[in-house]
Amino acid sequence: MARSTLSRTVPGELALIAAIRRQATFARSSEVRPGIGDDCAVLRPKPGHEVCVTTDFTLERVHFRREWHPPESVGHRCLARGLSDLAAMGAEPLGVFLSLALPARLPAAWPERFLDGFLALAGNHRVPLAGGDTAQSPSISKQHEGLIAADIVAVGQIPRGKALLRSGARPGDLIYVTGALGGAAAELAALAKNPRKFSKLTDAVPGHPHLYPEPRLAVGRRLRGLANAMIDVSDSLSTDLTHLCEESRVSALLEQAALPIHPLAAGSDDPLTLALNGGEDYELLFTAPAAARIPHVLAGVPIHRIGTVARPKRRQPPILMKTRDGRRVPITPGGWEHFQ
Amino acid sequence: MARSTLSRTVPGELALIAAIRRQATFARSSEVRPGIGDDCAVLRPKPGHEVCVTTDFTLERVHFRREWHPPESVGHRCLARGLSDLAAMGAEPLGVFLSLALPARLPAAWPERFLDGFLALAGNHRVPLAGGDTAQSPSISKQHEGLIAADIVAVGQIPRGKALLRSGARPGDLIYVTGALGGAAAELAALAKNPRKFSKLTDAVPGHPHLYPEPRLAVGRRLRGLANAMIDVSDSLSTDLTHLCEESRVSALLEQAALPIHPLAAGSDDPLTLALNGGEDYELLFTAPAAARIPHVLAGVPIHRIGTVARPKRRQPPILMKTRDGRRVPITPGGWEHFQ
Repeated sequence: MARSTLSRTVPGELALIAAIRRQATFARSSEVRPGIGDDCAVLRPKPGHEVCVTTDFTLERVHFRREWHPPESVGHRCLARGLSDLAAMGAEPLGVFLSLALPARLPAAWPERFLDGFLALAGNHRVPLAGGDTAQSPSISKQHEGLIAADIVAVGQIPRGKALLRSGARPGDLIYVTGALGGAAAELAALAKNPRKFSKLTDAVPGHPHLYPEPRLAVGRRLRGLANAMIDVSDSLSTDLTHLCEESRVSALLEQAALPIHPLAAGSDDPLTLALNGGEDYELLFTAPAAARIPHVLAGVPIHRIGTVARPKRRQPPILMKTRDGRRVPITPGGWEHFQ
Repeated sequence: MARSTLSRTVPGELALIAAIRRQATFARSSEVRPGIGDDCAVLRPKPGHEVCVTTDFTLERVHFRREWHPPESVGHRCLARGLSDLAAMGAEPLGVFLSLALPARLPAAWPERFLDGFLALAGNHRVPLAGGDTAQSPSISKQHEGLIAADIVAVGQIPRGKALLRSGARPGDLIYVTGALGGAAAELAALAKNPRKFSKLTDAVPGHPHLYPEPRLAVGRRLRGLANAMIDVSDSLSTDLTHLCEESRVSALLEQAALPIHPLAAGSDDPLTLALNGGEDYELLFTAPAAARIPHVLAGVPIHRIGTVARPKRRQPPILMKTRDGRRVPITPGGWEHFQ
């Protein structure tokens, strides 16, 4: 861990370092020596395992707003993004690294509460916070303070050759998704309307898919050897299924009637759009051969079959959806809103 | 690699992804499957090896100024920080990950030139750019654009148990440093006075320790089994030697006459202060038993013996320096300037 040369008085730096040190007893397992007090953390993957690495920004006004999101939610979501990427490979986490840039005048409670949310999720999944970096976010002018920026690095391990890639889908496969879709987008819309209603949600109680999404690590691991291809639904079903089709060079036929709509989305004006184009549900989207025995529930999470994989078709978008009235409509990658 | 949901039109995102794809042929070795087009990159360490991970921010106005630093230098320095941390463990690089947040109105040439500098250094050390993340840096107001922020993650491998930690120094060890000290601080001072003079330095020609520091990877690897403890000089000799003494619970006696002063610092008003307190030289500072045969030159880099390790002393700072006139003066961790 290289500390920024300027960051001696950054609020939250000491909190971050203290948090890593607190975790050290737990983390100083056979697999991880945390990076605090050394230039690098040292991770020891099991013999015969490969290492998966993913990195994701969490930027104020892009991925969250300080006026809307409880700091615990920002910490939780920051880590959930990284863990969800590991889940989508079928990997188990070895350690995570947190880089955090904080404005000089940020009250100390913010990074402390951010870390509470971050570490609660890390503890649930027994993932050590193995290192990171801290810096002072530069102010733009006397009137304009800097913004909060975090970067999460998640490192996992998986038996050699067992990683579930996006490129493994084959024509004839069935398409599945975990949990339910559209809930995060529905909750975000409610949050934007009335942030005060959500300001006390400082614990990751279930049923808050935007504020406290649950990375599907256990499901991901149990799909090794069952699924052919996998991706997490971070952008949206329409966008992420397009990625999977492109990497696998296949097309997909969704069935509208089979899409699992999250209860929060079901009560909205347009549940289908939220399910198709809402982002950040962090469910797992995967394909498996028709002969594979995919349970209806895996690690306590419902699994829904939502379509089939077909050969790629010329002059046709990679995704069609069979509507309830039997038509086939093209599905294009859907947009997603931001917080600017 | 999870792309930010908002970042469809970020300048440089396509350049970054194209750069990763360009590297894919070279990187798709037995050791690395790049993360582009999948949720994670998959790295395959050699059997019996541990994995070293480090992460470092590079923030505009903290670590560089757009008016001062050629973009190639910013890219080079961003990667050099991460590789230097691997060097300080004695590790060899497996892959690096780059997260890059760019303001919306940044001319496309900036990220392209940043990547040129980044990839030139990566190529020199045969390190694949295995993945990363991109996002749009949020603007603060109509008048104030967002700032550039990069986070580098460097992943390396080292035979199990061979990592050179900061905690291994023992009383009686000798203290060594590679290369020369104070050059980066001297060049930074010159850059601040006359940025235009340096604006054409877009290639990593030797002799520019601030703009184009050279991570000492080859030296670090060859010190495995010779050195007891190691750290890179990123903050400053006084600060980093203090870290090493604290982690090893020892004290140090430096010899002023033995300190290798960089030619750029030698011509300044206060060469000693630059050598002791100037940061970002990215040389390796290490200790070895007196009986160890440390060559005068290793992998083409001069090695200087600069002091000795002693038992910790109560009520005394961990570092003393024997001056040219034979006095012993305490050395405290030196400051470092920033670019705000």
